[in-house]
Amino acid sequence: MALPAPVLYPPFNILRLSHAELRVADLAWSRAYYVDLLGLQITHEEPGAIYLRAMEERGHHSLILRQGKPGVGTLGFKLFSEDDLDRAHAWFRLKGLRCGFTERPFMGRVLEAKDPWGVPLEFYATMDRLAPIHQKYALYKGVKPLRIDHFNLFMPDVDKAVSFYSEMGFRVTEYTEDAASGRLWAAWMHRKGGVHDIAFTNGTGPRLHHTAFWVPTPLNIIDLLDLMSTTGYLANIERGPGRHGISNAFFLYIRDQDGHRTEIYCSDYQTCDPDLEPIKWDLKDPQRQTLWGAPAPRSWFELGSTFEGAALVASELAASPIVAP
Amino acid sequence: MALPAPVLYPPFNILRLSHAELRVADLAWSRAYYVDLLGLQITHEEPGAIYLRAMEERGHHSLILRQGKPGVGTLGFKLFSEDDLDRAHAWFRLKGLRCGFTERPFMGRVLEAKDPWGVPLEFYATMDRLAPIHQKYALYKGVKPLRIDHFNLFMPDVDKAVSFYSEMGFRVTEYTEDAASGRLWAAWMHRKGGVHDIAFTNGTGPRLHHTAFWVPTPLNIIDLLDLMSTTGYLANIERGPGRHGISNAFFLYIRDQDGHRTEIYCSDYQTCDPDLEPIKWDLKDPQRQTLWGAPAPRSWFELGSTFEGAALVASELAASPIVAP
Amino acid sequence: MALPAPVLYPPFNILRLSHAELRVADLAWSRAYYVDLLGLQITHEEPGAIYLRAMEERGHHSLILRQGKPGVGTLGFKLFSEDDLDRAHAWFRLKGLRCGFTERPFMGRVLEAKDPWGVPLEFYATMDRLAPIHQKYALYKGVKPLRIDHFNLFMPDVDKAVSFYSEMGFRVTEYTEDAASGRLWAAWMHRKGGVHDIAFTNGTGPRLHHTAFWVPTPLNIIDLLDLMSTTGYLANIERGPGRHGISNAFFLYIRDQDGHRTEIYCSDYQTCDPDLEPIKWDLKDPQRQTLWGAPAPRSWFELGSTFEGAALVASELAASPIVAP
Amino acid sequence: MALPAPVLYPPFNILRLSHAELRVADLAWSRAYYVDLLGLQITHEEPGAIYLRAMEERGHHSLILRQGKPGVGTLGFKLFSEDDLDRAHAWFRLKGLRCGFTERPFMGRVLEAKDPWGVPLEFYATMDRLAPIHQKYALYKGVKPLRIDHFNLFMPDVDKAVSFYSEMGFRVTEYTEDAASGRLWAAWMHRKGGVHDIAFTNGTGPRLHHTAFWVPTPLNIIDLLDLMSTTGYLANIERGPGRHGISNAFFLYIRDQDGHRTEIYCSDYQTCDPDLEPIKWDLKDPQRQTLWGAPAPRSWFELGSTFEGAALVASELAASPIVAP
Repeated sequence: MALPAPVLYPPFNILRLSHAELRVADLAWSRAYYVDLLGLQITHEEPGAIYLRAMEERGHHSLILRQGKPGVGTLGFKLFSEDDLDRAHAWFRLKGLRCGFTERPFMGRVLEAKDPWGVPLEFYATMDRLAPIHQKYALYKGVKPLRIDHFNLFMPDVDKAVSFYSEMGFRVTEYTEDAASGRLWAAWMHRKGGVHDIAFTNGTGPRLHHTAFWVPTPLNIIDLLDLMSTTGYLANIERGPGRHGISNAFFLYIRDQDGHRTEIYCSDYQTCDPDLEPIKWDLKDPQRQTLWGAPAPRSWFELGSTFEGAALVASELAASPIVAP
Repeated sequence: MALPAPVLYPPFNILRLSHAELRVADLAWSRAYYVDLLGLQITHEEPGAIYLRAMEERGHHSLILRQGKPGVGTLGFKLFSEDDLDRAHAWFRLKGLRCGFTERPFMGRVLEAKDPWGVPLEFYATMDRLAPIHQKYALYKGVKPLRIDHFNLFMPDVDKAVSFYSEMGFRVTEYTEDAASGRLWAAWMHRKGGVHDIAFTNGTGPRLHHTAFWVPTPLNIIDLLDLMSTTGYLANIERGPGRHGISNAFFLYIRDQDGHRTEIYCSDYQTCDPDLEPIKWDLKDPQRQTLWGAPAPRSWFELGSTFEGAALVASELAASPIVAP
Repeated sequence: MALPAPVLYPPFNILRLSHAELRVADLAWSRAYYVDLLGLQITHEEPGAIYLRAMEERGHHSLILRQGKPGVGTLGFKLFSEDDLDRAHAWFRLKGLRCGFTERPFMGRVLEAKDPWGVPLEFYATMDRLAPIHQKYALYKGVKPLRIDHFNLFMPDVDKAVSFYSEMGFRVTEYTEDAASGRLWAAWMHRKGGVHDIAFTNGTGPRLHHTAFWVPTPLNIIDLLDLMSTTGYLANIERGPGRHGISNAFFLYIRDQDGHRTEIYCSDYQTCDPDLEPIKWDLKDPQRQTLWGAPAPRSWFELGSTFEGAALVASELAASPIVAP
Repeated sequence: MALPAPVLYPPFNILRLSHAELRVADLAWSRAYYVDLLGLQITHEEPGAIYLRAMEERGHHSLILRQGKPGVGTLGFKLFSEDDLDRAHAWFRLKGLRCGFTERPFMGRVLEAKDPWGVPLEFYATMDRLAPIHQKYALYKGVKPLRIDHFNLFMPDVDKAVSFYSEMGFRVTEYTEDAASGRLWAAWMHRKGGVHDIAFTNGTGPRLHHTAFWVPTPLNIIDLLDLMSTTGYLANIERGPGRHGISNAFFLYIRDQDGHRTEIYCSDYQTCDPDLEPIKWDLKDPQRQTLWGAPAPRSWFELGSTFEGAALVASELAASPIVAP
């Protein structure tokens, strides 16, 4: 199958990914991990939930931790305007997908919707705005997270996922093809002008593979590794550090005790040109994963977080040929 | 005066700044400076002209060096589509400003236009696309420039400049106000989601203050300083390194022998939210220039490159109260 | 005058500089500055005094802050053995200089001595040893100081200072000569194999110009600048960041509210070869101070901390020809 | 067995490791690897041999590449004085070990000797001195190697190797013990005040495990990885990047086509105190190898370069319990 043509005038204008809600078994443990260790800033805390933002974000939150059965509550996206929100509503209804307006704290109108695989999405145009803290350097700690960068999802049929998200205006920047079948194995799609706001990887899904946060430089990632490995978080380090072939970003993958994976990420490239040519990678090229050649561990290919209420479907494609033994 | 409200649905869609043409007295000298010292890549070379791109750019060029009387030939912007180009044409004609389609090598249709101060602009939707080189690490050298980031212009009336460029869809991210007069002293305006594609600073103008290139980390700027100061370019270092208060970026300013100033720049922040609140700075706050307190030298406030055919007008505002003695 | 020949078999074996005692007017203020801001670790605290070490040090302290009239209590040096301590005692007595054994907390035998200018020195072979903390990354903060690196003193006669300290085995690595008089303007002298344990700069003296701490990379210095400039310590930044011509180190100079100057320093070079050729610099070469050309501010040439009981003598040489205006 | 007590007054004064001679099958290939890729500087080139130094070294060479059957020609050490050279000669003769003075280009008197396992050593006090190039920043390339840092050898009996080298004045900074047998599994020994000039690892030997070069920061190692992985040297990357538990250094291991391993190394700590307490690690602690937990690959434990004329002896200890699968 070929990549779908980019949809340059989508039915509604998604600006960027915005936030995720993670359900966690032990909020106190997760607070220590995301706040004290990683350095996200608390913007609201109540029994059962903590709202967080990264250092350069002015929207109220980019991560919600909610006490509960481990899983993913929602993936949030910011739209350009309230009109876009109405257009999104109409579009999801036309598609016959579940959707409806709801209330959320700290946000204006919120459209809840499910994608065809049952992934819980939410769209909004207005969220409470907070005063800047990016120059309050005394608050920086941990890995110095600057902003949420992207979501990555396991999907049982990446071709179909890319088609669906293309219709919403996401554009492919890089992709991996399974040469044998000619089918997509993975694709990276963006709205905000970086390599991705959302990516899809072949596998049993839908599941959230990871949420990524952008940090200033690779040295912040090295600092985090030193910190994690000497403060009891050694087992939470999963993969990296390394340079991705795809995206060219410097990365580290870590997993919390509920299995939620976070990518610490920096230094991809600008992609806002609508005539940007997607870069194609071969599934058999180990440098697509890590430019320096090290394969990813098996857990990285197999483990992810489930979405509440979404039934899992196995992929028809074979597993990745390149896995660390 | 107040900041103009952002124009969220502009008459045509400017994606980003794209390129500049600099006229230089000695092309061989400039080649050594921009190519061998800074590390820009030659994409075309002919008698009298050199076309350059930075490492992650896939458009044919972001800088043209042309032998001639020192000055600035044009400032280029990429539009979203050919339709936008027609709309831009109509808009400039409605404004009664000089404009017209022209031919350029390596580009599709090009609209030449003058802003009200005579700044030569050019707009296009299509430029030759080149193969990616961002992972050809053997080509990286000098300061490892990744992409063109912004233009900064001296303007005699920043309020009026901001109004005019706002109409084209540029949105203010940060600005300096002269508290005495209530007038804008400087403003940073973006299209592509960073702190700026174009900025205006009070002063005799129009003149180009600088063109900026984005680099990976502050250490690349330190490397460039070490290199310049030991290879005969010591006198070309003008200001820095430092952290700007405005934009929060890490910076260095250097000037070529024709007086063209380049800013080496990294680590500002994401600004794509249309409800992003502009940050206001006081003209008397030295940290707006350099967060760490060091004032800029007099040359930085006074010297710039002229645009061919644009008459200079003095500013009515007083000079900056904070200049290095 | 010529540099003295290095004394390869000195009368006693000084391993390295070890510690300084600074008298401070407000111990609480200094605690916030050296501990919370810079990141030194408290190893002992009592009314009127705080003992500090840097992250890779295992000796009990490298800095003592003592409540009192601002000034410098002592400069400490570690000797190879107790025998060396006896030899040092004999040598100072032979020289007719004041010296004698004394008691200090956390240390074995301590020899107090005055150099010919009245600088209070102390020598020891044994200090309490503490458990390593260099891999306790949760403790790293501020500029992440790793170890004390050197002292720098204003001296009224650098030629004589260099002669005296040469006899004790310090070897010159770099020096600045006043071409007009042929006299030394400054010299850097080492024992431990870096560019210096102690340096002498021409000026009214003896006074302590600064104490330096070594940090991992230039990015830690940039982090400190960001932190100081946004937490009320802007006025304590004096000079830098920059690369020294002399020593090739990356540096920042800051001053506490008592006027004690600290250099934050990294990346000089290995000097343990006894046949290392000293590097000569011309007093008129601005790159000796800052490789990138920026001159030092006047305060840097004029201000220093006095030693208790040492009478000040003016230098006969003219002031530095290169001072920031 | 216990660690031997440090010999504080050794029979002759070794300053530091100095140089190695590597025999290589294809000098042109090795020139490209060590000079063009890694960035070592050629100081002499003749048919069949290339002499190299790193950027801050002033001795004539720290690495000799000689065309021949792959192996190691010699490991060189610089002594404090010519008298020390005579004392070394006497000491090796007393030990009944093969030794004798010989001629080498660019060096003064050279003492050739064999250690008890047949490792070819050479000692000298005087080597040709070259002008400094550490501030000739235009020459820096590749990984920007600053100086040779240490040798690491496989030895069949680490206890005995440590005893022998202790007698020469090398002092242990860190070591790994095999808890089952109480025997040393590895030890790091220094003369120059860093974590090591020479280390011994359990294994069939004597063989050279690696030679290490010091670089400015971890970012230079990341740059080298990017460069190697995109210029045909992907297969030469063996292990890393990572932080060692032992030494706390940031590291990368690469191997040339003859199997000679180079460690790229930075940021260990100062060790010149004679009362420095050696740090003990458990063989079963994976963080001793990599603080962040990743085990070393099997090749790293098994492969090394042979010394000409030295018979291999198998170790009696079991293989490391922690090897990447």
